Amino acid sequence: MTGIGFELLATDGRARRGRVTTAHGSIETPAFMPVGTAATVKAMTTDAVAATGAEILLGNTYHLMLRPTAERVAQLGGLHRFMNWNKPILTDSGGFQVMSLSDLRTMSEEGVTFKSHLDGSRHHLTPERSIQIQHMLDSNITMCLDECTPFPATPAQAESSMKLSMRWAKRSKDAFVERPGYGLFGIVQGSVYPELRAESVAALSDIGFDGYAIGGLAVGEGQETMFTVLDFTEPAMLKQRPRYLMGVGRPSDLIGAVRRGVDMFDCVMPTRSGRTGQAFVRRGTINIRNARHAHDERPLDAECGCPACQKYSRGYLHHLFKANEMLGPMLLTWHNLHYYQDLMRELRQAIADGRFETVASALEARLAEGDVEATTDPLGKPPKPQKQNRPPKAEKPATPNTADQDTTDE
Amino acid sequence: MTGIGFELLATDGRARRGRVTTAHGSIETPAFMPVGTAATVKAMTTDAVAATGAEILLGNTYHLMLRPTAERVAQLGGLHRFMNWNKPILTDSGGFQVMSLSDLRTMSEEGVTFKSHLDGSRHHLTPERSIQIQHMLDSNITMCLDECTPFPATPAQAESSMKLSMRWAKRSKDAFVERPGYGLFGIVQGSVYPELRAESVAALSDIGFDGYAIGGLAVGEGQETMFTVLDFTEPAMLKQRPRYLMGVGRPSDLIGAVRRGVDMFDCVMPTRSGRTGQAFVRRGTINIRNARHAHDERPLDAECGCPACQKYSRGYLHHLFKANEMLGPMLLTWHNLHYYQDLMRELRQAIADGRFETVASALEARLAEGDVEATTDPLGKPPKPQKQNRPPKAEKPATPNTADQDTTDE
Repeated sequence: MTGIGFELLATDGRARRGRVTTAHGSIETPAFMPVGTAATVKAMTTDAVAATGAEILLGNTYHLMLRPTAERVAQLGGLHRFMNWNKPILTDSGGFQVMSLSDLRTMSEEGVTFKSHLDGSRHHLTPERSIQIQHMLDSNITMCLDECTPFPATPAQAESSMKLSMRWAKRSKDAFVERPGYGLFGIVQGSVYPELRAESVAALSDIGFDGYAIGGLAVGEGQETMFTVLDFTEPAMLKQRPRYLMGVGRPSDLIGAVRRGVDMFDCVMPTRSGRTGQAFVRRGTINIRNARHAHDERPLDAECGCPACQKYSRGYLHHLFKANEMLGPMLLTWHNLHYYQDLMRELRQAIADGRFETVASALEARLAEGDVEATTDPLGKPPKPQKQNRPPKAEKPATPNTADQDTTDE
Repeated sequence: MTGIGFELLATDGRARRGRVTTAHGSIETPAFMPVGTAATVKAMTTDAVAATGAEILLGNTYHLMLRPTAERVAQLGGLHRFMNWNKPILTDSGGFQVMSLSDLRTMSEEGVTFKSHLDGSRHHLTPERSIQIQHMLDSNITMCLDECTPFPATPAQAESSMKLSMRWAKRSKDAFVERPGYGLFGIVQGSVYPELRAESVAALSDIGFDGYAIGGLAVGEGQETMFTVLDFTEPAMLKQRPRYLMGVGRPSDLIGAVRRGVDMFDCVMPTRSGRTGQAFVRRGTINIRNARHAHDERPLDAECGCPACQKYSRGYLHHLFKANEMLGPMLLTWHNLHYYQDLMRELRQAIADGRFETVASALEARLAEGDVEATTDPLGKPPKPQKQNRPPKAEKPATPNTADQDTTDE
């Protein structure tokens, strides 16, 4: 095997059922990758992450290059050994977080210079350095350094930015050290402009990558626009390579993007939301801090097999969050990741069975239903309805996904 | 079975090997009880707590009566079901935390009135109310409400305080609803005065309890004084009932107290220390935040079977604490609890084998040895030795145990 493998096992409409193979094992697609920013999926052991069904994690080059440094991770055996995760790892290039987290950035053709958000130290990131860092981390899937074009961008801005990313993609490819079971993905840019996206796809295909990511989305454009961009971008992309939609997203985003031919996803949503008390369930979202859950003996989601749902009541989880107990974020993160993996399992099975549209539509309908209220508190305190928990608002399909890629604390 | 059972299986000198039986299973003694203040052992799932070997948890009446309230815990099925722990639970009376955490306390013969440290609300705790709350929590071992005599205390202060506690013990006994597999423990007070301790033991024995706790220690008197108090208190205590030393302690405290006939312990030390980066290991203590661990490939303790030691390097754990990642406290708490349970297992086996003194002395000698420094950092940054990690200071046998019962955040 050179690079990483991809097998297209089934298609149903544009939805694809596939398998990515790497030096650390295979990944059934469509796949959701939990984010393990600083060499840990926050509030989770890797055993627990694996128990949810996750087959690949994402690590953040920006965070790891600053702390503990790529050299340190390499000295301690590489990222798999360092964080005790022996399955595949994908790392981003660091470019996105440089732009969103660091201070005093200066961009040039060569690369980007920035000050660390941790200690103000000065760093320089180029396509070559990003690839080198990801090599030291021992990442199975390395991402090219690119510029995530901000939204909105004029056609001229988007073109200039995309063309820089394409030149950087070529330099990334040249710097990448090929070895069996390790691969490099290019990233399609071009904002919301069909011709630019098409030009970017063509440029990357000419260079040749193990997989192709779609970047510059989930940055505030809204779900409808994101789907539109997928609709005109996907048909041009190589069928025989995996497609990765970066930084996406909410459950309804995943369903809609799988419907449009995407194979891989990552997002901080399930982990970050879990830490603040938001649970993703089959009927939308729940804010467990809401007073209406205090007396509720029911699990978060009666159909979920995760420990939070199998062993604990909503009343207990509510108590943990009110008491600022660490177990609250631990259990809600676990639940959310389990739910995301359940969702991907259902979508994979549906594609394999040729029932994608039936299953996807049913999932979308349930997400829109909203949570069922509990019975009255036997202790007599009536639940105070709170705005954020009114069922129809809990999971609006068209919610702008502005925050998806805001990885400040992940 | 009425009350809780206790079987004395073996003795070796004054050290005792026993078994406590309750409606939720049995506890091999000597036993260490992890503290689960607010219906959770901080940073641990109950499955993980059980995996360390813990057979009983302690819950805090003060915290639970304020949040989520005993009535709420009862409505949600009692503490076992609420927190998903089906083994025995011991609850304290609430008295100790009322004195250490709440505001505006007023003591009277009747009980104590206080303001909640959470919201300033006013509460009244009497022996009868404490017993009622613990009943609602469904605690297997209920503790009498007492006054933990401060240290130091004059003989007159200690006598007056002890006598109040004995009157409260009688009222606690009268209020306790007996049922099979549930028991009530009295608490010996009397500060450092032999006659007062003897009088307290006699008073409690006259009332009759399922077990007897030794209170008023680990409050600043130092290890030597604590052992002296045990030396003159223990011989008078009933042999056929379990003895519980409240709020103790460090590993050397546990060894010394088991040597003096104590059967049960609780302390926030392993959990609280774990959250701040202090690990208890066979050679003393380690502060994992210390720079000397950054490049260290070794586990915390090569002889430990916990996940933190089996799966992660010191370098990784150091990184987690430097990055303020939740997994750091999670893993160090797990390790510390596992180490404490290992220690109790070794002591139990040593008593059963009639080798207690040999084993205990060897354990004490290793604790005093201190950690072995790592080799030089291959990346060239020399470790900066820090005061708190100089081996001889890491685990001083005579360290004052002032903070053991300071349960502000547990």
